Amino acid sequence: MLTLFHHPLYASCRYVRIAFGEYGEELALIEERPWQRRKEFLSLNPAGTIPVLLAEGDHAITGATVISEYLDETRGAFQRSRRLMAEDPIQRAEIRRLVDWYLVKTDGDVTRHLVRERALKPLMAGAQGGGSPDSAAIRAARANVRQHLKYTNWLAATRDWLAGPRFSYADAAAAASLSILDYLGEIEWREYEAARDWYSRMKSRPSFRSLLSDRVRGLSPASHYADLDF
Amino acid sequence: MLTLFHHPLYASCRYVRIAFGEYGEELALIEERPWQRRKEFLSLNPAGTIPVLLAEGDHAITGATVISEYLDETRGAFQRSRRLMAEDPIQRAEIRRLVDWYLVKTDGDVTRHLVRERALKPLMAGAQGGGSPDSAAIRAARANVRQHLKYTNWLAATRDWLAGPRFSYADAAAAASLSILDYLGEIEWREYEAARDWYSRMKSRPSFRSLLSDRVRGLSPASHYADLDF
Repeated sequence: MLTLFHHPLYASCRYVRIAFGEYGEELALIEERPWQRRKEFLSLNPAGTIPVLLAEGDHAITGATVISEYLDETRGAFQRSRRLMAEDPIQRAEIRRLVDWYLVKTDGDVTRHLVRERALKPLMAGAQGGGSPDSAAIRAARANVRQHLKYTNWLAATRDWLAGPRFSYADAAAAASLSILDYLGEIEWREYEAARDWYSRMKSRPSFRSLLSDRVRGLSPASHYADLDF
Repeated sequence: MLTLFHHPLYASCRYVRIAFGEYGEELALIEERPWQRRKEFLSLNPAGTIPVLLAEGDHAITGATVISEYLDETRGAFQRSRRLMAEDPIQRAEIRRLVDWYLVKTDGDVTRHLVRERALKPLMAGAQGGGSPDSAAIRAARANVRQHLKYTNWLAATRDWLAGPRFSYADAAAAASLSILDYLGEIEWREYEAARDWYSRMKSRPSFRSLLSDRVRGLSPASHYADLDF
């Protein structure tokens, strides 16, 4: 079994867990708090970021998309219709664009800030960035939630899955991101019917199960978080 | 000829130009100022980011690494020893890790801030983020330059090229990033001998030539910027 250094409230880590789960491969999870900058962890990844996968031969593979490309090259390419990547280069580009959208843009506009202010600051020492939540940062992030839900709703309404006719890495990335916002109770699902239907299909996939049982100390999830009917 | 929407002071755009240049393929360049959020450009890429490549059939391919994966799939895979990607999945992961290091981490720690404060703010309207340079932001970015040069120096001293025995996307990404800092005169090359030797090899590659003639209005490059002997 391969090992993943992760944190339950990082979208990029959830993305990797869903992807391996789709291929039925379990990961040994080690919770890493990157803000602590542990020496042993920095020797695995000098950038200090998560996720990091310890792959075959204990090679450290660093970063969500680097890991998902590795997964595709070593497993996905042999999965036929269950492959999370398309064959066609233009379709592959569309999948990668959306992975980037959710793991970089949604994260930078919304997710990372709400997670930091609402969930992580109480766990951090002062010198690591801890302290009381910055309400201006929370307001700014909340103002951006709508744009990302509207975009997801549009994708879900016009395509079978977010990047096209087949389930792909794009769905894994979007669900990774939105599941964190949902944990925090930041999504008004009734305003986004198509996105809600899509997310309901995501939630019932076996690869999603372990995410729905994630719990973070000191912060309970929204009451509907683990309900398949929400 | 394909078209690239780019800006000369964005590392991710320079990276794409070097990569196509390595395969001897010219690009039609359109300078885009992403802070202006042009409507026509947003319809190509709703994220509003550069680079965007108009590929075959005018499909918009968005984002530096999405473009370089597309380039590898449509050109690189047929280039044999000139290919900018390795064959082995672990080596591919190392190349991608370093591309990410330079285009995301170096960019976020250093390059983006110095470019914004020193070069772009005078071109921006007030509502777009223009105004006088923030000297605290410049100081913070400068404090991080050393770490990135030291790391590059270590890579260059211990490997033939930055990701291993062969020239790769990692070298293109590092050179894209450092060439911008060099334009701004922010690098003390004499402290980093191995990195300097490596950069000197980069500068003499034909793919680098167009970057050395880039000029930005109102900000001349450091005097040695275009010298092959610096």
